[in-house]
Amino acid sequence: MNAHIITIGDEILIGQTLNTNAAFIGTLLSQNQINVSKTSVVGDDEQDIINEFNVCWAKNDLVICTGGLGPTIDDVTRKCIVQFFESELILDQEVLADIKERFERLKRVVTKLNEDQAMIPQCAVPIKNRKGTAPGYWIEQDKKIFIALPGVPSEMKEMMLSFVIPELKNKIGDLKKIRKTLSLLTTGIPESTLFQKLGNLSEILQGAKIAFLPNQFGTKLRISDEAEDERVVDLKLSEIELRIKALVGRYIYGKGDDDISETVCKLLIDRGMRISIAESCTGGNISNRLTNISGSSKFFDRGIVAYSNAAKVELLKVDEETIIKFGSVSEEVAKEMAIGIKEVSGTDLGIGITGIMGPTGATDGKQIGTVFIAIADDTDVFSRKFLFGDDRILNKDRASQAALDVIRRYLLGISLET
Amino acid sequence: MNAHIITIGDEILIGQTLNTNAAFIGTLLSQNQINVSKTSVVGDDEQDIINEFNVCWAKNDLVICTGGLGPTIDDVTRKCIVQFFESELILDQEVLADIKERFERLKRVVTKLNEDQAMIPQCAVPIKNRKGTAPGYWIEQDKKIFIALPGVPSEMKEMMLSFVIPELKNKIGDLKKIRKTLSLLTTGIPESTLFQKLGNLSEILQGAKIAFLPNQFGTKLRISDEAEDERVVDLKLSEIELRIKALVGRYIYGKGDDDISETVCKLLIDRGMRISIAESCTGGNISNRLTNISGSSKFFDRGIVAYSNAAKVELLKVDEETIIKFGSVSEEVAKEMAIGIKEVSGTDLGIGITGIMGPTGATDGKQIGTVFIAIADDTDVFSRKFLFGDDRILNKDRASQAALDVIRRYLLGISLET
Repeated sequence: MNAHIITIGDEILIGQTLNTNAAFIGTLLSQNQINVSKTSVVGDDEQDIINEFNVCWAKNDLVICTGGLGPTIDDVTRKCIVQFFESELILDQEVLADIKERFERLKRVVTKLNEDQAMIPQCAVPIKNRKGTAPGYWIEQDKKIFIALPGVPSEMKEMMLSFVIPELKNKIGDLKKIRKTLSLLTTGIPESTLFQKLGNLSEILQGAKIAFLPNQFGTKLRISDEAEDERVVDLKLSEIELRIKALVGRYIYGKGDDDISETVCKLLIDRGMRISIAESCTGGNISNRLTNISGSSKFFDRGIVAYSNAAKVELLKVDEETIIKFGSVSEEVAKEMAIGIKEVSGTDLGIGITGIMGPTGATDGKQIGTVFIAIADDTDVFSRKFLFGDDRILNKDRASQAALDVIRRYLLGISLET
Repeated sequence: MNAHIITIGDEILIGQTLNTNAAFIGTLLSQNQINVSKTSVVGDDEQDIINEFNVCWAKNDLVICTGGLGPTIDDVTRKCIVQFFESELILDQEVLADIKERFERLKRVVTKLNEDQAMIPQCAVPIKNRKGTAPGYWIEQDKKIFIALPGVPSEMKEMMLSFVIPELKNKIGDLKKIRKTLSLLTTGIPESTLFQKLGNLSEILQGAKIAFLPNQFGTKLRISDEAEDERVVDLKLSEIELRIKALVGRYIYGKGDDDISETVCKLLIDRGMRISIAESCTGGNISNRLTNISGSSKFFDRGIVAYSNAAKVELLKVDEETIIKFGSVSEEVAKEMAIGIKEVSGTDLGIGITGIMGPTGATDGKQIGTVFIAIADDTDVFSRKFLFGDDRILNKDRASQAALDVIRRYLLGISLET
């Protein structure tokens, strides 16, 4: 089954909004053995949209489009669908009841605009929207499937997971060839060094495909292979995983879409340890990532963003002398921050991080991108110096990733040094 | 001039990586009056890539592709370019010198893989890469332009800004019709209510186009129009802006790509006021957003992520009795947090925020999505209750946006209530 994903909206074409929808749908389809042949983006122009429907519907078994189903005048997708499938709009009582019930719950008044969203193309089965008002459409014609979903990511996602994917699975049944992907997530090692450490790739891969995907959080290794028997692919991928782990296992913190904060979260909960974080240069980024994990209150007690020197001294008991002698960006201050937050919080571990994120702030001997991270336990304090790039936002991500990796390495007994 | 943006990479097609590159390039081209006709994504397959080059090169004056220029075996774009333009690879000494100089600075060893990146197609002018090793290519043929850039966003961005856009401007010269876009960013008002408050849109717009673009941070109004005289478009858009502001000005916090943290940053610096933040449910998200702004140390002193009740009591002097009587998610606790952080920091303003982000944590009378935000000044403390949705990560964004909007409204003397 070949699929094409169309994203509709000027805001995507001209880059004002990121195309997270195509990414999400692409992931789900691939995971379910549906081949995504191509994705495209077209603007909010009726003729452009209908042209794209024509091209994609001719070449594929499945077309999924998102966007343009909202209540305002710039939303033209419904009109295009009616025209393309030569259908007409009819009122769906069930959709109308859903909309009214939703507004009731959020204590808002139903407007005429919202009610109009219950008018759906006659050729379509409505897809329930549990997160908003615009329903999706499921249309089957000529043994092909056309699906239209709203552009609001949370609404589209819920519909994909609770309706579209289960329905597609029903339709497809068993497929002949199973394609599977294994993603190993590394951090703390440059892409080219990783490539070298892996050595003879064809021996490791035995015919499978590999991609190296670097970003500010590390390099993802995406390995994929296919076979007629699912167990054969699974076995092969797990053998590849073992061979890769034997060579570069210390850098691997997770699989698939894991965030390293989830890895750290599991390790801390397993060990029954609590942690507190003292951040200067990352400004709350680390605490924010840890608290993105549901259940983080089990191990995360508090964080202090000590941006000013006064805050470091008052809240973390950093010695003013240390700041004067070594500078606020120094190994010594990072260590005192780690010890300080651990003491004031009474947690098992404390993290201290200080650095220069740019674009300004370089001092003699300390260039932009310099970061010191320390971790304190009951008996000792360990630290490491890092050197990142010159982009402030990327550096905050890199530094928070490195800090979370310091915690991971500490808990697994891996040296903090490369 | 019509442009097509091609993004190359399985990781984009199957949704493992977001297509931020097409968004960034689309924005820049539109801002420079180049019409983006379509964007597409193809996988790392040589034949698919060459097919896409063929289609796009035939239909457009400008093709920009990103991805597949890295040092590892999955990077095939260079090979495809050599084949498509019937060219060959030659060593570029200047590119080689750049690579060596970069590695020297980062204190890393140049590998054979890195050196190989100095081999570039003979038909191309190399584009200097200041953030990484792979150079970009600029190819002119048949009065058309083909540009290939690395897929790593920071590298691609730097090349677009410092080389591609200035060169394109030179080539294009003056264009006949000028198209301009005005984006007004609103928050704290649902899309359909915003639409209603605007009333008679055709009277406001006088022929210009409008789009309503909602996300967890608010609704963006994108208004665009074109004319032969730039001053005519500018005047018309500023008149539209005035008409819209007269109706819904209190909800507008910025323009274009502004983040509300920038708006708040400017207001605080203008007024010479310092702020400190006490976060529970947002877990550092607000501090992180404020410190994303370079220069935030001018007004941001410290933040405390008081996740546990103990942290609220110990660090923020919240009364234990208040927590027992009203619950840790309550207006009273938010107010005491705001007063507490202001007092322990000695800042002009203090912010307190507490809520239930989900997926668990609902208590009797308080559903998931309930958030209380308070702001304290020298004489008083103000607060507001919010009700968001049920997605943890989106709720953190919504709550931090609402808190930043509370600061904005306070500083501008706008009521905190809708």
